[in-house]
Amino acid sequence: MPPSSPALTFDFAGIALDRRQGLSRQLYQVLRQRILDGRLSSGTRLPASRDLAASLAISRNSVMRAYDQLYAEGFTEARIGDGTYVAQLPGKTITAGKLSTKLSTGLTTGLPTALSTKSLKHTEILSSEVIHSTALERLKQHHLSPLKTGLARAFRVGVPAFDLFPFGVWGKLHAAFWRKPDMRQLGYGDAAGEWRLRELIAVYLKTSRGLHCTAEQIVITSGAQQAITLCAQLLLEVGDGVAVENPGYRAAGHAFAIAGATLHGISVDGEGMCSDGLAKSESKMAYVTPSHQYPTGVTTSLARRLQLLAWAERTGGWIVEDDYDGEYRYSGAPLAPLAALDRHGRVLYVGTFGKVAFPALRLGYLVLPVNLVEPFSQRRAVDMRHSEIGTQAVMAEFIAAGHFQRHIRRMRRAALSRRNALLAGWPDDIAGCGPIPKPLAGLHVAITVDSLAREQELIALAESVGVEINPLSEYWLPDSTIPVDKRAGLVLGFAAVPEADIELALRKLRTVWR
Amino acid sequence: MPPSSPALTFDFAGIALDRRQGLSRQLYQVLRQRILDGRLSSGTRLPASRDLAASLAISRNSVMRAYDQLYAEGFTEARIGDGTYVAQLPGKTITAGKLSTKLSTGLTTGLPTALSTKSLKHTEILSSEVIHSTALERLKQHHLSPLKTGLARAFRVGVPAFDLFPFGVWGKLHAAFWRKPDMRQLGYGDAAGEWRLRELIAVYLKTSRGLHCTAEQIVITSGAQQAITLCAQLLLEVGDGVAVENPGYRAAGHAFAIAGATLHGISVDGEGMCSDGLAKSESKMAYVTPSHQYPTGVTTSLARRLQLLAWAERTGGWIVEDDYDGEYRYSGAPLAPLAALDRHGRVLYVGTFGKVAFPALRLGYLVLPVNLVEPFSQRRAVDMRHSEIGTQAVMAEFIAAGHFQRHIRRMRRAALSRRNALLAGWPDDIAGCGPIPKPLAGLHVAITVDSLAREQELIALAESVGVEINPLSEYWLPDSTIPVDKRAGLVLGFAAVPEADIELALRKLRTVWR
Repeated sequence: MPPSSPALTFDFAGIALDRRQGLSRQLYQVLRQRILDGRLSSGTRLPASRDLAASLAISRNSVMRAYDQLYAEGFTEARIGDGTYVAQLPGKTITAGKLSTKLSTGLTTGLPTALSTKSLKHTEILSSEVIHSTALERLKQHHLSPLKTGLARAFRVGVPAFDLFPFGVWGKLHAAFWRKPDMRQLGYGDAAGEWRLRELIAVYLKTSRGLHCTAEQIVITSGAQQAITLCAQLLLEVGDGVAVENPGYRAAGHAFAIAGATLHGISVDGEGMCSDGLAKSESKMAYVTPSHQYPTGVTTSLARRLQLLAWAERTGGWIVEDDYDGEYRYSGAPLAPLAALDRHGRVLYVGTFGKVAFPALRLGYLVLPVNLVEPFSQRRAVDMRHSEIGTQAVMAEFIAAGHFQRHIRRMRRAALSRRNALLAGWPDDIAGCGPIPKPLAGLHVAITVDSLAREQELIALAESVGVEINPLSEYWLPDSTIPVDKRAGLVLGFAAVPEADIELALRKLRTVWR
Repeated sequence: MPPSSPALTFDFAGIALDRRQGLSRQLYQVLRQRILDGRLSSGTRLPASRDLAASLAISRNSVMRAYDQLYAEGFTEARIGDGTYVAQLPGKTITAGKLSTKLSTGLTTGLPTALSTKSLKHTEILSSEVIHSTALERLKQHHLSPLKTGLARAFRVGVPAFDLFPFGVWGKLHAAFWRKPDMRQLGYGDAAGEWRLRELIAVYLKTSRGLHCTAEQIVITSGAQQAITLCAQLLLEVGDGVAVENPGYRAAGHAFAIAGATLHGISVDGEGMCSDGLAKSESKMAYVTPSHQYPTGVTTSLARRLQLLAWAERTGGWIVEDDYDGEYRYSGAPLAPLAALDRHGRVLYVGTFGKVAFPALRLGYLVLPVNLVEPFSQRRAVDMRHSEIGTQAVMAEFIAAGHFQRHIRRMRRAALSRRNALLAGWPDDIAGCGPIPKPLAGLHVAITVDSLAREQELIALAESVGVEINPLSEYWLPDSTIPVDKRAGLVLGFAAVPEADIELALRKLRTVWR
């Protein structure tokens, strides 16, 4: 449809508008694109709006709105009494030749022309460029494994019995909060978190863990992961050593490595992280899970706890104590955390609500030596300001109203019952498998296997019948000196699904593993 | 109350239990503390539970529970037929002498003794120790200003008319989400954010900004601040230059500086960030607010936009485009963002819901070149995994049901009306003050003042009558070469409070400023 009027000085070819969408916006975009890529060069006179409207068979109003927008943005200029011209734009960023076959007009069209094939995606062109930075390099080695998505199934690790969470109560508390929110809470808040929540956590830690701290020492975080990241980012220099349990929680190791630290894998025996290995490792920080070692399930002995503290005191080192599942203890009260034994301000205690409520809540906290509270809060503010207000306020009310303590008891009972279902039905004569330990704490259990090949085989067979088991070998640092066959094992979470599902999964395992 | 029985080999002095609290826990703590600090040395025989109970006038059960816990944790050991002894513990972390006047028993007490004065706070002792790290050093210069807390008042900067937010609708959407949550969403989620929300944002950006992108390119963040931080942490090396508008948004500058970057303040004229200054600055990244420069209110011209893109293309630099208040434009449609003009994958577009909903929502997003989506998601996962699920899901529903677009229109009308109240009532003959510009976009306005002293005076006078005004001088980098008097001015947010409050504040200003 070439124009017949001699006043038109540009080519209409390829301009096809989708009548189901805004016409003036489409026209604006096609004209803008042609100006940017040089097909409409500086000084070109645009057709009168009436003529263009007629040519495209659209309303004159649509053309005028498009023209107005182009003018407002500086793509065109008016010459009084002489219509509208394409403006003189500074150094073209894009040459027409280079892009003529790649750039589209941004329009959907029924006409298959070279220039209006499909909507151009922002930055589609150089997407294959390889970008280098130290941070990106570190990420290549240190990122979390792909997520286990979909509904929880036996024996997913790291998730509690969140089918039991009182979502009805939670929703009502949300509704109550939003019905009449305190306007003072809706602007920018305290990076350390809502005061009321911090107070309630301090009380909870005192009664449930024997950890005496003040609300001032607590900094709310987006789950345990952010708590670990803050320790890594604030206290480590590039090249500092960090002692991590090996096998251990790899996501924590990644956070330290991303901060530029060198990971020193320290072996774990029946008492916890080995003190000798720690002492020899020249580390600035030690990351430990003393309540229930992840993933072996070992509880760190008192002697080791005191040795850890002595190491930190002697070397000026830091201890990051991740008490990720301290609520789950099936005999006796929880052991005193390192933070409760620490008298020199060397322990940073990490807690989370994710293992009692549900992981997607993303609510955790740090208990910090008092002199670290301000810098940690300041850093969190620069990083992201603070956590969403509703979640914090609702959790505070959930605790204050007693729901939290009731829920912990319910979760502990459920986890214990599910553990028992696993122990009762576990096939104890599988070739290559060690005996299943009886976990006295936590939400998972680790079983040794006598070779990596057998580990892989057992897991593949389990997966073939829809049963999810984590390979213990993946909890080791890749550069471990321990032979690969000594790293093999199975890690099973027992809390994620109800007893009947556990029993069904075990029946399937008995079938395929023989 | 010294013990009379010769079987007791330790001193009861200072043991006072608060009968309003758990007695066994208190006893456990005081004994543990005495073992740790050496007052109860290794090998000491503990009194029989019956004797200790009688001496302290508490039940024998309480003593036995305390003893059980001490035994379970390894503080004591049993010798068959011979009672309970303090265990041999590895190298004392604490010497009794050093702490005798500092350590308390962890008990509240009515007896004023040297050893049971008040509850010891975790790490109270060395709280004055100065801790050094590169990250902590950077924080000293680069942290956010103290918050303006309390109810919003005229003329708070950076907050929208969130009194108009439909909290009732928001609460109902929350209640609906939690009533029957999809269990698949409650475990660990996608670090890039909930897919439905990302899809809806992509559609929104296309229709409202002319920014064509796919849902894959969008990464949800904890507000704009986390979006900026991710750009800083992932793409910069220590020592890299970052061009920032000067005056500008200091919180962004802090995020770059915390990542180790050197800030280059680039002057802003009537067209936006000056291209010459940028070109000379040897920067790897430029942070800009083209829709409505923060805080001067300048809209970046098309010519400058193209020059910025040309700079990035030529130098391999990055542009972080913060479109923090792009929803607020009072004449014409918003200008095309840099990201919509970018054809080489150099622009990282930052958007936020905080300026349309409310800041404490902490929900923002990045639109990324496709090749950066995976590393940004991976880094966010290591940093904190992802944002809380309820907020994401409710925002998605809020958009899908049309509430969001309605609310934007309502907010734009309100902000315009509040702007007009400010313009109508502004005292235009204040000594030393330049004229008030008519803002065509955004939520604030900047007015020049002819000296720093006058700026401080006007702000102090305003504060004396409860009116909040930000000093323009604080938006400059401290090492700016511009003379301090040229940096002076007033920055007023006009959206935070209703028209009547604006008028009242203006009446007060007219009184105190004369």
